[in-house]
This record gives sequence, structure tokens and C-alpha cells, in this order.
Amino acid sequence: MILRDPIHGLIAFEDEEERVIQSLLATSEVQRLRRVRQLGLASLVFPGAEHSRFSHAIGTAWVMSRLLDRIGHVQEGVAADQRLDPASRREAIAAALLHDLGHGPFSHLYEEVLPGAPRHEQWTADLILHPDTDVHRALAQFGQDTAHNVAELVRGRHRLPYLGLSVSGTLDVDRCDYLLRDSHMTGVRYGIYDLDWLLRALTLGEVTDPEGARRTVLAIEGRKGLPPIEGFFLARNFMFQQVYHHKAVRAAEVLVRSIFARASERLRDPSDALVAPRALISAVRGEPATEAAYLDLDDASLTSCIAAWQRDSDPVLADLAKRFMRRNLPKTLPLPEGPGCEPLWAECQARASEIATAEGFRADLHVWLDAPVDIPYAEDRDVAPGVAAVDPLDGLWVSLRHRPMARLGDVSFLLRELRNKRTVRPRLVFPAELREKVLRAVEPLLA
Amino acid sequence: MILRDPIHGLIAFEDEEERVIQSLLATSEVQRLRRVRQLGLASLVFPGAEHSRFSHAIGTAWVMSRLLDRIGHVQEGVAADQRLDPASRREAIAAALLHDLGHGPFSHLYEEVLPGAPRHEQWTADLILHPDTDVHRALAQFGQDTAHNVAELVRGRHRLPYLGLSVSGTLDVDRCDYLLRDSHMTGVRYGIYDLDWLLRALTLGEVTDPEGARRTVLAIEGRKGLPPIEGFFLARNFMFQQVYHHKAVRAAEVLVRSIFARASERLRDPSDALVAPRALISAVRGEPATEAAYLDLDDASLTSCIAAWQRDSDPVLADLAKRFMRRNLPKTLPLPEGPGCEPLWAECQARASEIATAEGFRADLHVWLDAPVDIPYAEDRDVAPGVAAVDPLDGLWVSLRHRPMARLGDVSFLLRELRNKRTVRPRLVFPAELREKVLRAVEPLLA
Amino acid sequence: MILRDPIHGLIAFEDEEERVIQSLLATSEVQRLRRVRQLGLASLVFPGAEHSRFSHAIGTAWVMSRLLDRIGHVQEGVAADQRLDPASRREAIAAALLHDLGHGPFSHLYEEVLPGAPRHEQWTADLILHPDTDVHRALAQFGQDTAHNVAELVRGRHRLPYLGLSVSGTLDVDRCDYLLRDSHMTGVRYGIYDLDWLLRALTLGEVTDPEGARRTVLAIEGRKGLPPIEGFFLARNFMFQQVYHHKAVRAAEVLVRSIFARASERLRDPSDALVAPRALISAVRGEPATEAAYLDLDDASLTSCIAAWQRDSDPVLADLAKRFMRRNLPKTLPLPEGPGCEPLWAECQARASEIATAEGFRADLHVWLDAPVDIPYAEDRDVAPGVAAVDPLDGLWVSLRHRPMARLGDVSFLLRELRNKRTVRPRLVFPAELREKVLRAVEPLLA
Amino acid sequence: MILRDPIHGLIAFEDEEERVIQSLLATSEVQRLRRVRQLGLASLVFPGAEHSRFSHAIGTAWVMSRLLDRIGHVQEGVAADQRLDPASRREAIAAALLHDLGHGPFSHLYEEVLPGAPRHEQWTADLILHPDTDVHRALAQFGQDTAHNVAELVRGRHRLPYLGLSVSGTLDVDRCDYLLRDSHMTGVRYGIYDLDWLLRALTLGEVTDPEGARRTVLAIEGRKGLPPIEGFFLARNFMFQQVYHHKAVRAAEVLVRSIFARASERLRDPSDALVAPRALISAVRGEPATEAAYLDLDDASLTSCIAAWQRDSDPVLADLAKRFMRRNLPKTLPLPEGPGCEPLWAECQARASEIATAEGFRADLHVWLDAPVDIPYAEDRDVAPGVAAVDPLDGLWVSLRHRPMARLGDVSFLLRELRNKRTVRPRLVFPAELREKVLRAVEPLLA
Repeated sequence: MILRDPIHGLIAFEDEEERVIQSLLATSEVQRLRRVRQLGLASLVFPGAEHSRFSHAIGTAWVMSRLLDRIGHVQEGVAADQRLDPASRREAIAAALLHDLGHGPFSHLYEEVLPGAPRHEQWTADLILHPDTDVHRALAQFGQDTAHNVAELVRGRHRLPYLGLSVSGTLDVDRCDYLLRDSHMTGVRYGIYDLDWLLRALTLGEVTDPEGARRTVLAIEGRKGLPPIEGFFLARNFMFQQVYHHKAVRAAEVLVRSIFARASERLRDPSDALVAPRALISAVRGEPATEAAYLDLDDASLTSCIAAWQRDSDPVLADLAKRFMRRNLPKTLPLPEGPGCEPLWAECQARASEIATAEGFRADLHVWLDAPVDIPYAEDRDVAPGVAAVDPLDGLWVSLRHRPMARLGDVSFLLRELRNKRTVRPRLVFPAELREKVLRAVEPLLA
Repeated sequence: MILRDPIHGLIAFEDEEERVIQSLLATSEVQRLRRVRQLGLASLVFPGAEHSRFSHAIGTAWVMSRLLDRIGHVQEGVAADQRLDPASRREAIAAALLHDLGHGPFSHLYEEVLPGAPRHEQWTADLILHPDTDVHRALAQFGQDTAHNVAELVRGRHRLPYLGLSVSGTLDVDRCDYLLRDSHMTGVRYGIYDLDWLLRALTLGEVTDPEGARRTVLAIEGRKGLPPIEGFFLARNFMFQQVYHHKAVRAAEVLVRSIFARASERLRDPSDALVAPRALISAVRGEPATEAAYLDLDDASLTSCIAAWQRDSDPVLADLAKRFMRRNLPKTLPLPEGPGCEPLWAECQARASEIATAEGFRADLHVWLDAPVDIPYAEDRDVAPGVAAVDPLDGLWVSLRHRPMARLGDVSFLLRELRNKRTVRPRLVFPAELREKVLRAVEPLLA
Repeated sequence: MILRDPIHGLIAFEDEEERVIQSLLATSEVQRLRRVRQLGLASLVFPGAEHSRFSHAIGTAWVMSRLLDRIGHVQEGVAADQRLDPASRREAIAAALLHDLGHGPFSHLYEEVLPGAPRHEQWTADLILHPDTDVHRALAQFGQDTAHNVAELVRGRHRLPYLGLSVSGTLDVDRCDYLLRDSHMTGVRYGIYDLDWLLRALTLGEVTDPEGARRTVLAIEGRKGLPPIEGFFLARNFMFQQVYHHKAVRAAEVLVRSIFARASERLRDPSDALVAPRALISAVRGEPATEAAYLDLDDASLTSCIAAWQRDSDPVLADLAKRFMRRNLPKTLPLPEGPGCEPLWAECQARASEIATAEGFRADLHVWLDAPVDIPYAEDRDVAPGVAAVDPLDGLWVSLRHRPMARLGDVSFLLRELRNKRTVRPRLVFPAELREKVLRAVEPLLA
Repeated sequence: MILRDPIHGLIAFEDEEERVIQSLLATSEVQRLRRVRQLGLASLVFPGAEHSRFSHAIGTAWVMSRLLDRIGHVQEGVAADQRLDPASRREAIAAALLHDLGHGPFSHLYEEVLPGAPRHEQWTADLILHPDTDVHRALAQFGQDTAHNVAELVRGRHRLPYLGLSVSGTLDVDRCDYLLRDSHMTGVRYGIYDLDWLLRALTLGEVTDPEGARRTVLAIEGRKGLPPIEGFFLARNFMFQQVYHHKAVRAAEVLVRSIFARASERLRDPSDALVAPRALISAVRGEPATEAAYLDLDDASLTSCIAAWQRDSDPVLADLAKRFMRRNLPKTLPLPEGPGCEPLWAECQARASEIATAEGFRADLHVWLDAPVDIPYAEDRDVAPGVAAVDPLDGLWVSLRHRPMARLGDVSFLLRELRNKRTVRPRLVFPAELREKVLRAVEPLLA
């Protein structure tokens, strides 16, 4: 199978172990991913960012295919039981394609908002393991352990631990694809790093864990691998700052959260006939949802639901729904960051809530404190050279000629400075019509 | 307003006349375009091609903005009444944004299949002119003629005829954006031509029409403008061959056409309760549809309708719907092209239909002759230098120093060879399970 | 060895057979290519086009490396004696790197101007075969036939005929690299075609020659290979029109030709002490040049020679040299093309020459008729399907499933129209100061 | 004048004030820049990096042209005497084109090596101001102060101080072009930042200097300007690490330095007849060089000089010259960085020198300690908000709505971490044939 892709150009799955891709693409569960946008609400702000989790899934499988080629080239020096075999290759490719299978609509919002809803990782595993899904059947034809091993891999676990981390870890194929894809589709161009060179700079190496056991890890090769890996983490940082934590994207998200919060209040009452997707109702009521119900959940079904709620007799829900459908997004005010700022944030939120209440709004649904956090490069520092004080599978290692393996943050000038630094972007979020009053009340606190 | 775009990079609408963009983006009719994919079913074949008519609309407005800048630079030599004024600029920008407003789902399929459905150009005009639409209200605030002039422009008509052609003509801003965008998103990279240079090579010139009147036209400047305009038409040719007329894309389209055909048979019976969007029912029954009903039509609503039909008790409809939802597309067999081939095509179709009938299929819904036609570069040749035998507004003109204006096809080596040449790609299309039998019956005819 | 390249990105020569690259790069003959610009005088017009034949040589070797990989994938169905072996691979890589080894300065000008000078293909072969060159010694260490086979390959000959054509043929690795590189470096972006896809669309096939013998040829695979190969020939066409035959590039070339013509007149006299490179003097006098003398010839040595001639006591030579060094290029006037135009061209040249003479110029050194010709896609048409009336190694073949091999021009709509069409761009070239007089004398002929 | 460029695409100098470009391009001094490579010896390591200071000069002028457009858009709020006028625009464009006019061959090497040689900034100014140069005459025709003002601008001084800094400052048009160009041509792709967005994020603002005076400065606009400016400094950091301070590039540079050192020893003796460019001899002997002599200095003249020295009877010089011409570069050994490491470096150098001496090498010409330093982002921190403790013209300012201007390092998370951090890359450099002995002697010190 040869495909074209706006990010990777020519994508080819032609190896024997890649036949699994063709089988999986034909399943209803994978096809559903066409109807879930990768960036959720961000396309409200970045109109080009309309790509789905389906094209991301294919891109992720392609990065895995290239990573497996690379591992094949560098595994000679590694213990025989730590090398790739055909089954591992097939499992890795399948897991890369399926890693987001259970993802709900609107990115992470869906599960954050509904405490009763299973997390998307859980749904992914359930869909892979449940004997009645198309995906399970497609995997089962390749061997009886395949589905189980793929479900484990999606959670980052495998008999080859480095393979688990390449599906779900600090430097995994998911990130490798989405940074490039999201950057490209939003048009911001900040998440672009050198994937070709990064792949070529990967190698397998060994580190000693605190118990003294040797562990095979995926490592960056020598100094020539630093620029692409530094570029990778800087790309990640830029994307969080500019896209994922963009003020208008976050504003749209808190608005949707309030819509779900209000709908949940209604749906918790079994006698309330509010129209909603089956899986949403189950999640609110703490009942298990069927696979079929979950698969009917996608961006379009949720959006048409919100569209219908515009005409609901519940004025609170109808008002929130209208704001969303007309793209009347809340306004944001940046708050100061730094140690000891939390009480100030709370005071700002209190003042804004007071104003909202006085103006007839439900403050809990219309005034938010939004403080997204990111750690651009996380790594545990307390390690001796070549010996990990913690699990060596955390963080990234660099292989240097004639020297013991080193932690990336100890070798890279840039990442040493950024290591374990936290960015917080606190904002007060409130309805546009309260803008002047809120500013008047809050700005004295910020002077 | 500044936007990011995967195709154009930085997009800025900051002139006074561009304020209309912001007003129009806030309307429900424009926002609906987010839910209609630009390439209809092509994303089944090119997974990256998930972009909507919304991002294309913004890109088109941006190309118009740049074109207007260029015209502003070169209009000095032109009669005063043929120059741009602020109102024309605003109308042109608005028309560029709105040119696809009434487009139905699944690209051109919707209107092709339903003889009773208004064509999308008609819907676009109706939505712009109808006093109750958001779009109309947004335009009306800029002047009482604005909506009318924009609706005319979308049909290619304006007091500045060259402006009409730049919205809908041989070289219009719609094509300028979609060739780049579709090429990029499909990943084929064949539709890429040099927009920067093309815009800079445009100028205004005058030609004499057969009545001897002078007409102002948009023209290519001298020889340096040939490569980008040649590139433009070659790009168009490649995109038709590789994407728009791709065999699997066309196969998906004929399948959907049959689904609609069968649904129409059912819906024509007023007592049939088949669930379908309101606007679809109206179109089938020859009744007028409301704007609201039309705006509810989008890719998602039609897809979920087809999904529901999989479970319908009508075995023909259910089978067709299942084939589509499971991406079980018909197979295609290329037929010979050339003069006098039509009887052979008909014979092939007859043999395949016979087989289909014998196997229990309805041949009219399962066997198709598909022969898409394209003329990569159309131009009327019978013109004297600088004098058009036909309407000078057809085709493209080249302005050469010290010489009369010439038709593009007379100046360009490449386009002279391609001028008015037709490509046809005839194919027999039939269900995959009939492949061997059909080949056995038809191949002797093709030897 | 891993390299970075502005055109191909990451270039890696890591196979055993590619060790020859490293050896050859260390030779003085290959290093000399750093001092010869790929595009000769075109950088006077396209300032970015400063790339040398050295970087082109590396790029060409890289395309060959990728082509050999492709052939390795598709050679299974081919007779054993027609398959690649390690020696062939090494020879092909070396020949790709060395194909321009004997190239003189200023592109093709040097040898065109000096009838006595050996052609660059001859110099290339001589340098490879001469036992005292670094290059010969580097090749000899890989086997006693290596140098001989590489020299043959550079001329397009090899025991695997398709390999010869891939070094020097219609679709060879030289063109594959230079179209991309020249396009990129000039900034025109017209020579860009899809190399990835083109390589993947290549296959090996068999055709029957007129004697009935089966011949293995490199062919385009099916219909999916048409767009990249069409793109390749269109790219070639654009580059000739826009860069290689650009009016100012050609004007600079005729000026340099006159400089050499005048210098040759002088140097033919053994008593004339005009300073010039040794190899130039030998060529003028019809004496053999040594390898060492030839290798001292490069852009810089010729340019500094011309710079010195500005101060020569010979007024003709000094004047021509000054015009070149100050970039005071001749002017050009396009002449009409078409059958029967030659007498008109001659008349134009005669009138301009008369004026030049009257103004004190030597007409043979200052007035030129320049009429570069190109055939964008050449192919012999008179062939039966799958049987070549002429040598099947000419032109390109397309492999279609279930059908005999076909000539590219019979399968591609675009190339059928362009096949064997000739473009000519006649121009009258004369000193800038004669512009008005020449126009006055010549334009009546052109009206 | 419209040009093509591999970096910027279409370059157009069409404004009245840009006519100066055309005049300057026709001068011998600017044309000489075609013969000086931008990256000096780096093309030995990055074969594509063959671009000259000439194409960089054009690119720099183009960035200036775009910057001036931007300033034109944002200067309304600024005091009238701080705004651009036509003369300033012309001077800025000219200075951008000429900023490297006096640059010697081989990048900065030439002047580093010859203590008597004027620095390139001095040469640039001299060439602009000297009444007999072509460049001076070209400038003089635009006004009697033009040459003087341009010479001042090249040194960063102008009546509009922000204009001076845009020619030579932290964020100047020189860097803007060379980061993109060097990154692109080397193929490393690390120096790519978003120039479009960066230019659009620039504005004029005012800060108060320590004396309380208001100063107009070029500033980054709000938070949306952070990503491109962060990208700019990260790009700079990558280019230093990967290209400018690349170990093989530095090794080639120290080798050339030794060649010049040995040649200087010889040339200091007036009776030594060693052939060398006139300007080189003058510099060694502390005599003033003429403009003409300096202009004959270029990469080719120096290279052919070194080539000739290979055959000199001085064994030391001949050996060094041969090493360079055959690309037999010295080897490098990375040394530890950190406070207190200098004695260790000295000890390593001493041991290697001892070995070199014992093997018959002149240690001062064959063993080097190379420790290039870079500060990726330098900024003086001790400033109160909006009031500069030091000259406000140092560093960069960010303009935030409703707040005083702030230093970039106080606003950007990334640059705060990098601010004023120093990178050092110490290496021991020595002849390849001493590799084993040196490693054996030095490695115990590094364990």
C-alpha cells in the first residue's frame, strides 16, 4: 500500500509485517477516526487545522515503520532476546496506528468533563481486546497474542521495553507525527524538527538500573544527534505555547466544558428527556457504555447535539450552546505567573464571579480560572553517569563514544537549561459582555 | 485580522475594505462550510485531503486581496471608470469568500444526482440575497447594493468585467487557491505553481471586441509571465488526472450516486418514511427547500444518514450503504479512448450489466460507464491579433511590448500544443465480486 | 559518510560498494570541480546560482545510489545476467560522481569556442584512464577493470545497457540532479519534479528489438508513473526556456565566446606573449594538453585571465574583456520563429553588422545571431507495441499490466503532444550602445 | 529590478529609493563579493555551502527593504524627527547591500591571522569613503552626504539610532539573511525561523534612558512576537553549534591560520621572494595597502597562492599547504568544559606539543587549543521596567499592551533561561598522524 501524505510525502507499507495496516484500515473503529479532529477546537482559531485522528494515525504508523527500519540497522550489538522479531514489528506497527483508537471528540475535553467516562486509553484497550470489534478480529487473524500485545503496547508495555516507550514515552512516534502535522496544518510552522536526522541518530544502548541489571534503551547517538532532539523538544514547547495553550483555543474549551457541565446536571435526572448521544448519557449516569455507543460519538454528533441545544427551553444551556455555535468565545485576561500568585488568581476569579452573578450569569459556568501547565523537557536529574537512580526507562539517554551513556539533559546545553522547568499560563476567562466591568474590578490587583 | 494557513502562511486582512471578512466569518452560513469537505470523497483515497470549503474560502479571499493589490499597482494606464474603487474592492473580497457558500456536501455529487436540486451557484446567490440570512445582513451593513453586487460577482458579472472573471473565469482566485490547497493536502504536490510570480505578472490591458469597442482585460505581462501561467494550467491538468479523476475517487462517487438514486426512488413516494435530511426530500419531490433546511445539509448529516440506511429493511439500499461505509468500493477497468470508441464502451457496459443481473444485482445501480472529460486549456482560436472574434473576455491575453495583445495559446509553446485538446478517461465500473466474470466477458473486446 | 545537501537533505553513502565515493572525493581531480560553477555564466543573471559541479557530482552519485536501491527491489523477474552485482553497483556510483570530471570552465562554452580542444567527455575518460591521475589510482584499488568500466559508463556503455543509460541517457541521474539543483539555486523553482515518486515508479522490463532479441530496459511502471515522468520533462522544458536559454545568460555567453575568439587569433601566433592558461594555449595551437594543465583550468583562472586582458594593449581584446568584467552585456532582440524565417534572421544580422562596422566595431566579434534549440521530449515514434523499430534503448518505455510495453509518448497525453516538437528562440545580439540604431534598421523587417 | 533567490524567492527593488541598488551592483567592489564565499572554509564540510557574500548582500538588502516597509507602517505614533525619510531609506538599503564590502577571503580568518591587516569593517568604510572607488562614485550621485551616512550606518550609527542597529545590532538584517541562507545552503535546516512573522511583529516604541531621555527603539510587538524572535535566537545558537563551530570547519581554519603564520614569517623578510598577493605582503609588513590590492584578494587568489606554496622549497610551508589542498585536516579531541578547566586544557596542549616536537613538527604550527565561545542571547539584565540602566539600544525590547516596555529576556520563558549563558567548545587540534600518541598521552588526564 502506497499513500500520499501532506506531511511525510510518500508513505509505503509494503513489508510482510505491515499487511496488518491494510486489515486495520478496513475496520469501522479506525474509520471512525476520520470523524474526530486531531486538534479538537483549535480549528476555530487555526482554520487550516482540520486534520483528523485518522490521518495522524497513518502518519504515526509510518514513523513507526521508519523507526523499526532504524532499529533493524542498529540492533546487532544487542542481546539476541532484545532484538526485533517479525511479531514485534507487526505489533508495533499496529499499536502505532491504533494508539488513539478510543479518543473521544473534541480532543481531551470529553473525558476531562465527564468524571464517569472511561479515559481514552481505556477505551482504546477495550476496543482492541473486545472480541466483537472489527479491530479485534483484524488483529486476531495474525496470531492469538496479537491483540493482547498490541493493547499492552498502546499502554507503553512490551517484552521489548524500548518498543513500549516508542509507542508511549518521552520520544514516541505519536509525538513525532503530531508535532509535524499540527504545526503544518495550523500554519504556525513552529513544530518542525528534523525527523530524518533524528531517526538516523537513534541507536540502541545499555544502561544499568539501580539493581545493577543491564537494560536496553533507545538512545541518541553521540553529539550529532543533539540538534534534532533539541529541535524536537523546542518544537514541542512552541506548539504548547502557540497552539495547544493558545488563549482562544483555551477559551473555546472552557465554554464547551460548561456546556457539558450544564448538560450533565440535566442528564443526571433520569426523567430529563434532553437529547444526547447514548455514550454521553451513560457516562453522566455512571453506567457502562457499549462499544457501539462509544463509536457513534464523534465531532459531528456532538456538534449537532450542541446545535440542537440552542433551541432547548433551558435558558442556561441554550445560551451556552448559542455562544459556541456563533463562535462568541469568552474573553481572557492574562494573570501574573510566579510563586505565591495563586491567592491573587483566586481573588481575581472571585471579583469576576461577583460581577457575573450580579449580571445574572451562573458564575460557575461563566467565569473560569484557566492555568495550563507544561514542562517542555522533563528528566530526572539524580543519576550517576550510566547508572540510573530511577527507572532508566524514564527520560532520554545519549550514547557517547568511549564514555558511559549520559542523560540528555547533562549533554545538551539547551536542554540542561530547560530541564524540569515548568511553564504556567494563568488566565481569567469570562463572557465578552463583562469585559469592561471585569477589567475595572481586576486591573487594580494586577498593577 | 491575521491568520495562519498551511498553504499561504501568514494571511492578513487589515485594509478598511477587508473588514467585511470579519463580519462574514461570524455568520452561520459561512461557518457551515467548515462541515463540507473541499474534495468530497477524495479523502477516502488521499487521507490527508480533509480540508473544508471554509479554509478554501479564506484562502480564496486572500488570493483576491493580493490580486487587488496587484491591480492597484497596474491600473494607472487604464480609463478612470475601469479602475478599482473601495466598493469594488470590498465586493470582490466578499465574493471570493462566499463563492462556494451554497455548495452541497460531497462536492458536485449532490446536485448532479438530484435533478430537482438547485445548483450550488443558485443556492449561493439565494443565500446572499435572501434578507433573512446572516450573510445578507452582514453585507447589507456596508451599503444597500453590496449584497446584490456580490451575488452578481459570484456569477462572474460586475461593472468591472475583469473583476467578474477573477471570481469566476479561466484564471480565477478560486482555482488559484484550490489547485495549491488540494495539491498540498492530498500530498501529490502536482498542482503547485508559482503564485507569487503569477500575481506579479498580471497587468491590465485593452483589447478590441468584434464591434470595435475597447475592453479592459486582465492580461499576462510579456514573456516573463509565461512560465507561471503555463505552470498554472499544467497544475490543473495534473490535478484532474491524478486526483479529481482518480479511479478510486470516481468509483466512490458512482457508488454514492447509486445510493442517492435508490433513496430517491423511495422518497418520491410520499408515504415512504425513509429518514433523510429535509432538503434532500424536498429536492427529490421537486419542492422548494428553505435556507435552513439546506444549511443543515453537510458531509456529516449525509454520512450519518447513509450509516443509518445500512440497517434499513430495503436490501438494495442497505447493501449499497454498507459498501460505502465499509469502503468496499467498486472496481474499475480502463477502456480505450479515441474516436469511435463509444459503441465499444456500450458493449462492455452491456456485457457487465448482463453478468450483474444474472448475479442478482440491479445493473442500473451497480454497473456504470464513467468517462470524465477535461480540457486542460480551452481557448477560442479564431482571433486576429488584438481583436477578438468572440467575446474578448474568454480565454487569456498576453501583453507584449511594442506589439498588439495576443492570445495566450498563440504565445506559449506549451499551451499552443495543448489548446482545446480533450482528455477522456473512460472506465467500466462494477462490484468487486464480479471482477473475474466481468474481465472474462469484456477483455476479448479490448484485445 | 553522511552529508547534508540543500537539495536532497540527508545524503548517506554507507554501503560497502559506496566506499569508492570516499576515495574519489580525496582526489585533486574531483576537488577541482569545486572551482567550476555548474551553471557557468548564469550566476550573472541568477545571483543564487553559485553552486559548483562538485556539489552536483555528489548529488548525482546520491541519485544513483537511490536508483540502484530501486533496481535491487525490482530485478527479481529479470534474467540473472541482467541483474546488478557489487562491481556494477560500484562502477555506477563512481561513474555518477565522475560524469563531469573533465568539464571545462564556463559550462559548455570552453569547448564550443576552441575547435581544437578535446570535448569534456573525452577529458573525463582520459582522466579516468590515465594511470597517473589520482582518480585512476583511486579506482584501480577496487579492481583492474574498474577504471575501464567506469570510463565506459560515463559514455553510456556497460554490460548492463540500462545502467549505461542511467548515467547518460534520456532519463539519467545527471539530469535528475541538475534539474532540481539548478531550479533551486536559481530560485526559479520550475525544475522541481517528484524524484521520490519517480524512483518508485521505475522498474525493469523487457522489449524485443528489431532482430527479435529480448532487451532489458528501465521502464516507467504503469499509469501511476506518468505524472512524475511528465513532470520531469516539463521541468526540463521550463529550465531551458527560463534559465539555460535566458536572454541575458545567452548574451553573456556570446560575449565570452568573442573574447576567446579574439584571444585565439592572438595565441595562434607563437610569438605573441599574451598571458593565458597553458591548456588554452595548447587548445588554440592544436597541441595536446597535459592533465595537469587542464586541471589548472577553472572559473577563477579564466576570470583572472580575462581581468588581466582588460589592461592589454590590444584594444579589441581589452574592450571585450572590460565589457565582461563590468557586466556590460550585449542587448538582445527576439526574432520571429517558424519555417522559412532563416533568411529574415540573416538579413537582420547583416543590417546590424553594417551598423556595427560603421561605428568602428568588428562585426564578427560584436554582432551575433543566437538561436538556441531544444526538443523538450524526443522519442522515435515508428515502433510497434512492444517491438522497437529502432534501438529499444532510445526513449522511454512504460510497463502496463496485461499489455505489451509501450513508448512513453504513446501513453502520456501531455508527452504525445510535445513529442519531437522543437523550440527555437532566435535573437539578434549586439552592443548596448548600438541599440537605437539597430532597432531602427531592423524593426521594419519585423513588422 | 526583480530577482530570483533560493532563500527569499522573488526579490523586487522597485521603489525610487531602491535605484541605488542597481547603481551599486554595477561596481567592481560589489562584484568582487561574488568571489568571496560567505562561509569561508565551511564548504569543505558542507559541500552545498558555496554561496558568496554577493548573494548574501542582495538578500540582506531585501530584508532591509521589507523592514523599511514595516517601519513605514508602524511609525505613525513616533516623533516626526524619528521617522524614516527618503534619504534614510536609501542609506539603509545601500548600507545593507554594502555591509560586508571589505570582507577578506576565508571569512574572518584573514584579519585574525594578520595583526597588521585592517579589520573588514574598516576596509568597508574606507572603500565607501574613498573618492576613487566605484562604490563611492555610485553613492555620491545620490547626494553629497550619502557615502558618509552609509559608512556610518555600516558601523551601526545613524541619526535614527534604530536604523543603525538594524544594520549592525542584536537583531540586524545581516543576521536575518545569513541565518536563513547558511542554514539552507549547508542543508542543516537548523537556522530557519519565521522571517515573515518576525517582520510583522516589529514595531517602534519608546524607552527612557538613565538620563531620563526618551529614545525610539525597534521593539517586538506583544506576546505574538515571541515565537519568531525566540526562533531567531535558537536558530543562531544551532548554527553556531552545528556549522560555524563544527569541529572539521574549525580544524580547517586552524590549519589555514598556520599557513598564514608561516608565510608571514617568511614575508616579514623583505628579501624573501615568496609569491603572495600584494595586500597580504603589505599587511604582514605593516604597510598600507591600496584599495586595488585589497580588491584582488579573494578566495581564488588565496587558494591558488596556497596551491603554489605546495611546491615551495620551504618544507614547513609546503607541508602545511599540501595538507590543506589535499583536505588532510587535523584531528580534534573534545576537552571538558566548565569553570577551572583552563589549566587542564593547557596541560593537554603541552603534552601534545611535546609529542609533535619529538616527531619533528613545529608545535606552534601543528598543535592548537581551539575554544570557540558563543553567547546565544546576550542582554544586560539590570534594568527597571521601561527604564534602561544601560544604553537602551542594547538588547531587545518587547512592547506589551497596557504595560511599560520590557526587556525580551524578562518576557520570554526560553530566553530568560538562556540569557547571557556562554557556550564554550574546547578542543585539542593536532595532525592526524599523531592521533594515537596524543590520545595515549592525553586521555588519562580526561578520565
